[in-house]
Amino acid sequence: MGILKSCYLNERPGKDILRSRLKEQEDLLFSNQNRIKESGLPVVVLVEGWGTAGKGTLIGRVINNIDPRFYKVATFDMPTADEKRRPFLHRYFEALPEAGKFRFYNTGWMNEIVNERITGKMSDSFYEKRIASIRRFERQLNDNGYLLLKFFMHISEEEQKKRIEELLSRVDTKWRVGDEDLWQNKHYKQCQKVIEKYIDDTDVSSSPWYIIDAASEKWAELQVLERLNEGIEIALSNSTMAVPLLQNTFPLVKMPKLAEIPLEGKALTDEEYKKKLGKLQDKLKDLHNRLYRKRVPLIIAYEGWDAAGKGGNIKRIAEALDPRGYEVHPIASPEPHEKARHYLWRFWTRLPKDGHVAIFDRTWYGRVMVERIEGFCSEND
Amino acid sequence: MGILKSCYLNERPGKDILRSRLKEQEDLLFSNQNRIKESGLPVVVLVEGWGTAGKGTLIGRVINNIDPRFYKVATFDMPTADEKRRPFLHRYFEALPEAGKFRFYNTGWMNEIVNERITGKMSDSFYEKRIASIRRFERQLNDNGYLLLKFFMHISEEEQKKRIEELLSRVDTKWRVGDEDLWQNKHYKQCQKVIEKYIDDTDVSSSPWYIIDAASEKWAELQVLERLNEGIEIALSNSTMAVPLLQNTFPLVKMPKLAEIPLEGKALTDEEYKKKLGKLQDKLKDLHNRLYRKRVPLIIAYEGWDAAGKGGNIKRIAEALDPRGYEVHPIASPEPHEKARHYLWRFWTRLPKDGHVAIFDRTWYGRVMVERIEGFCSEND
Repeated sequence: MGILKSCYLNERPGKDILRSRLKEQEDLLFSNQNRIKESGLPVVVLVEGWGTAGKGTLIGRVINNIDPRFYKVATFDMPTADEKRRPFLHRYFEALPEAGKFRFYNTGWMNEIVNERITGKMSDSFYEKRIASIRRFERQLNDNGYLLLKFFMHISEEEQKKRIEELLSRVDTKWRVGDEDLWQNKHYKQCQKVIEKYIDDTDVSSSPWYIIDAASEKWAELQVLERLNEGIEIALSNSTMAVPLLQNTFPLVKMPKLAEIPLEGKALTDEEYKKKLGKLQDKLKDLHNRLYRKRVPLIIAYEGWDAAGKGGNIKRIAEALDPRGYEVHPIASPEPHEKARHYLWRFWTRLPKDGHVAIFDRTWYGRVMVERIEGFCSEND
Repeated sequence: MGILKSCYLNERPGKDILRSRLKEQEDLLFSNQNRIKESGLPVVVLVEGWGTAGKGTLIGRVINNIDPRFYKVATFDMPTADEKRRPFLHRYFEALPEAGKFRFYNTGWMNEIVNERITGKMSDSFYEKRIASIRRFERQLNDNGYLLLKFFMHISEEEQKKRIEELLSRVDTKWRVGDEDLWQNKHYKQCQKVIEKYIDDTDVSSSPWYIIDAASEKWAELQVLERLNEGIEIALSNSTMAVPLLQNTFPLVKMPKLAEIPLEGKALTDEEYKKKLGKLQDKLKDLHNRLYRKRVPLIIAYEGWDAAGKGGNIKRIAEALDPRGYEVHPIASPEPHEKARHYLWRFWTRLPKDGHVAIFDRTWYGRVMVERIEGFCSEND
């Protein structure tokens, strides 16, 4: 028995019980939104599922219980040519909610991967890489105080077929059936295999998948609301607990301590300097050209003591680059809308497109250096 | 004699004088950047011109005199399908520099209009509309303390032909010649007519066009630097002067005063209310559907007394809308990066795509109501 069948074993209640439980959960969400706002908990609700499973309808029903100023719905199609020029998680990271708000993802990173996997455009090894990225991404959200809820709206092959036929039979609803839906229904078994594998690969205890029986609108809403309210309550009671510190996953070469680096005797004469600088700038210019043509994105990160000369150094690097192909990002103290999000958000949103260069004047490392000293972050970050 | 020929009558200086004037202007820009930073003057430099006139090279030379943390270069191609779903000025507005910084536009709104005009996709009446929008846009920048400098890099038909042939003759530079460049050179006279008309239509005393003789790199740089430094100095000496108040250009129906509106006797019974609400929500749902299919963007703006019930009202509107097709924007006090830009920037960047709905909970009118009381803006805004 596959994951999709085994995961929702809750029995669907009778009509009266369904109605009263639904009312209870709707009221609960209505009051939970205020607790979320007060505690600053950001909530990410990922809604994935089969075509015609009613993802849009479900989101519509759920948000009717929330003040529209405290949620946003983000709808994602397959990435455009321009979106493909950045890391695939970029657009999902950019859409993260602020503290105290909900963000509903009307399909997200699962749909993108599963689609490319089904159409055969993604190799096994590439798929494994993507899964590793996704697990890290979801872990990052959890570790930084985001409540992440992942729902998969499930309907059977027959139910999907019935819905497609119904939609096609009326002029008013015909346009809602996409070619993908038809293709998916025709290859249901094949899709199911890929979906089950994906769910299995990303189902971790810190953010499990909830398979929703989407045969009926109200029943689907009840299942989602119960998980959502439960998740909110657990997150709120956990929010005072310490977050586990992540182990660094990269093997690092031992760096010398700053005090051990000799700074004397390194000066050049003016003449030597100009000659070397010109030569190296020419080389950099050439490399930037090749970078652009090979579509490689490059990040140059600057950290250092105040007044150590970062600005002048950046200027001499920039002189050698094509002005259409780079941007310099001076990183100051985070602004309110930045502080209200994952601390990496302001860096993710500034990532270079492929073939472009981003120069960061101070970086994410500031989080563990300056900001720790100035009190912008805690030991747990 | 057309505009392009008549506009640059400065005689090109000899080599030695050119070099010394260039050095002088480069040093001046280097020191002016600090004055810009201190006074918070935002500088928009629009660089338009013929293909192969050296726009990129010029920008590269100019920015070499500025700290890379204080400028950005924005490069614009013709709008993508997604960009076309918003007002055409949206992407240029979004790219506006913060106070105290430079933004170089490597072609901008002129190039877009002229291109569509030349390829014959734009009717006369549509062109007139665009010109009116552009004049308003540029006026808005001036009136809000932006220094706007508009340069057109001019080369002759023969010079362009020579450059194209040179670029094509080497493998390394071949890729830099686009189909547009070839087409433009073939239809130079026709393009010239459209360009001259555009320049004539948008050449106003508050932001005049500067036609740059782009036959030589250094000479072009000198002309631009002289105009740029001159512009900065005038803007800095003007910055304490009052800005003229714009006349409202829309004829308005006289609105009743708030105190004159009777609020009594308007209550409905619960039953009447529910019936009417349901009916009107159904109608709105249907209208949203039609809006989406006809690709009409809609803005709903809320202003009102605190605690007057805006939130509840927005909720009942939102209930009737498809959650994939609207966003609610609560407008709070401007954040630092918003305060550093044109006061309409944070609204421009939140404009809905076509077929979508944006609900603003408080709006740009706050500028002349609450913010005037709270001291965020002056009478001149």
